[in-house]
Amino acid sequence: MRELAPLRWRDDSLEILDQRALPARETWLRCESPAEVAEAIRAMAVRGAPAIGLAAAYGCALAFDGGQRCTTESRVVFEEAARTLAATRPTAVNLAWAIERAREVFEATEASGSDSGEALLELAHRLVHDEVEAERRLAAFAVERFFEPGHRALTHCNAGPLATGGHGTAGGVLRTAFDQGRLAEVWVSETRPLLQGARITAWELAHFSIPHRLVTDSSAGALMAAGVVDRVVVGADRVAANGDVANKVGTYPLAVLAARHEIPFLVAAPLSTLDPGAPDGRSIPIEERDAREVTAPLGVAAAPEGTRALNLAFDVTPAELITAIVTEGGVLEAPYEESIRRALG
Amino acid sequence: MRELAPLRWRDDSLEILDQRALPARETWLRCESPAEVAEAIRAMAVRGAPAIGLAAAYGCALAFDGGQRCTTESRVVFEEAARTLAATRPTAVNLAWAIERAREVFEATEASGSDSGEALLELAHRLVHDEVEAERRLAAFAVERFFEPGHRALTHCNAGPLATGGHGTAGGVLRTAFDQGRLAEVWVSETRPLLQGARITAWELAHFSIPHRLVTDSSAGALMAAGVVDRVVVGADRVAANGDVANKVGTYPLAVLAARHEIPFLVAAPLSTLDPGAPDGRSIPIEERDAREVTAPLGVAAAPEGTRALNLAFDVTPAELITAIVTEGGVLEAPYEESIRRALG
Repeated sequence: MRELAPLRWRDDSLEILDQRALPARETWLRCESPAEVAEAIRAMAVRGAPAIGLAAAYGCALAFDGGQRCTTESRVVFEEAARTLAATRPTAVNLAWAIERAREVFEATEASGSDSGEALLELAHRLVHDEVEAERRLAAFAVERFFEPGHRALTHCNAGPLATGGHGTAGGVLRTAFDQGRLAEVWVSETRPLLQGARITAWELAHFSIPHRLVTDSSAGALMAAGVVDRVVVGADRVAANGDVANKVGTYPLAVLAARHEIPFLVAAPLSTLDPGAPDGRSIPIEERDAREVTAPLGVAAAPEGTRALNLAFDVTPAELITAIVTEGGVLEAPYEESIRRALG
Repeated sequence: MRELAPLRWRDDSLEILDQRALPARETWLRCESPAEVAEAIRAMAVRGAPAIGLAAAYGCALAFDGGQRCTTESRVVFEEAARTLAATRPTAVNLAWAIERAREVFEATEASGSDSGEALLELAHRLVHDEVEAERRLAAFAVERFFEPGHRALTHCNAGPLATGGHGTAGGVLRTAFDQGRLAEVWVSETRPLLQGARITAWELAHFSIPHRLVTDSSAGALMAAGVVDRVVVGADRVAANGDVANKVGTYPLAVLAARHEIPFLVAAPLSTLDPGAPDGRSIPIEERDAREVTAPLGVAAAPEGTRALNLAFDVTPAELITAIVTEGGVLEAPYEESIRRALG
């Protein structure tokens, strides 16, 4: 079976699978500069916290064309790339995390006089490799602990291969659970406004032949009340030091419903998603996107012309509603301040 | 200001505002038979529990073209119309309620030998008049008791003029609250899959110049957590004897969130929506609609071809989560078994 991934490196360029066109068309955008990568992230051609972090790492590498420069110039070049890439989207911490890794490599090459571009490209390749390994470990921990044969899981948005390094966070958990015979069916919430559930998660699950049914985001309550949801599994854009989780808008209502129905609510989050610098959810910036994503689904006007809309891209789920945050370091549970500190320590 | 209504009687026909085309086009469907009315209800050209009840009343009248018939024949004609109309949609009780009113009138005309068609038409006109009066009284009760200047209310789906007799149930509450200076803004949840919030509620609120902002259905949690929702007001398709409420899918999650945030959750329900024959929510049939409403929003394919979807049109909100059910008879509160019995007594 063909593996899926959001990024590929070809002919000294980063190619990005344009997820805005899925599932209708599989087209790859060719990016040759940090600015082009930044634009692809901003426009959500590539999305998903781990994937945009990895794209940003390649973006840093693309700042250097391989030619030798004086130290002052290369510092300007690096900082401009870092600033441009970091400014694309505010909520996912993986962007800042990847750029920080790139900065460490850049400083080391500056100090040693070696080729920054080459070292940054090696870093990006390594981050992808490490990310996929981390996702596989994370999935194994989650499935071992929380999945049994026959389980039906609900997931929100897309945290599968295309949102990540290539295995998936929440999507990787589902894939591993299915491979181990511990997953009967997935409920896919469509995830308005950009319908990543309908367009991308359903496409990925079909690719892996995992049984699934699509529902509107509003259906989760009825499904849980009917007793047909055994697990809720979502990804994360940023996890605060106290365990509060920012993720795609609609995650918080799912957690509230899951708590009411005593359904385990699992967050699949690589360690790179944990942000010890954010004490709690209130310190996580929440991106507001263009109102037209709401007023005109799939580009077709639904609301009357001139209708105002508020388009919050994320919400915050308080730690108290989260059964476990599963990382490549193991399963973190309450009290999260302690388990998160230990995992990062 | 022009009043809005879903139905009008013209030239011996029922004209139905085709809500599927809103807000882009205002077109009226001409119905000259019960079968045509039934098709308009099934296809959701007219929707909303009170409005489809009223349409069905006109549909019964349309079974009779005014010519004299023998008693056996007119009974067959009436029963066929009643059966056709009742079979259109299962969840809203107003359909059965209106057909029952029509049956009483039919039996009386049969017994007295008077013109069934004329009497049924008079009944339909009277039901519309009574419904609007009831909606106005209901709204006054709700606003008097639950609204203060500056309040921001969230509503789901459409329960305004076009879903009802012409004032609105939940929408009528908002309109009356605004007219009395007790409503600052309305949050309109778009209401997937058919986007009645975006297409119809936003259109109505704009018509009445009531400030509003559209949000995805998933945004309610974030809004409540941010403290910008003071009241949740929804309509009802059927209220069981114990106070459980069937309404547009997504209502139950809103009630769970409102309870968590201690926000009053109000159901605006004319007495015709109360069903003493349904002991609780489990006895209310929940309509499943075409999967394509989910897989292809506004008719545009989003999910990959062949994606299965489950399209539950309604969910059930347990009575324990409902602050009050407001009717034209007054404000009903827990214990609902008692208050509902008294209201219908």
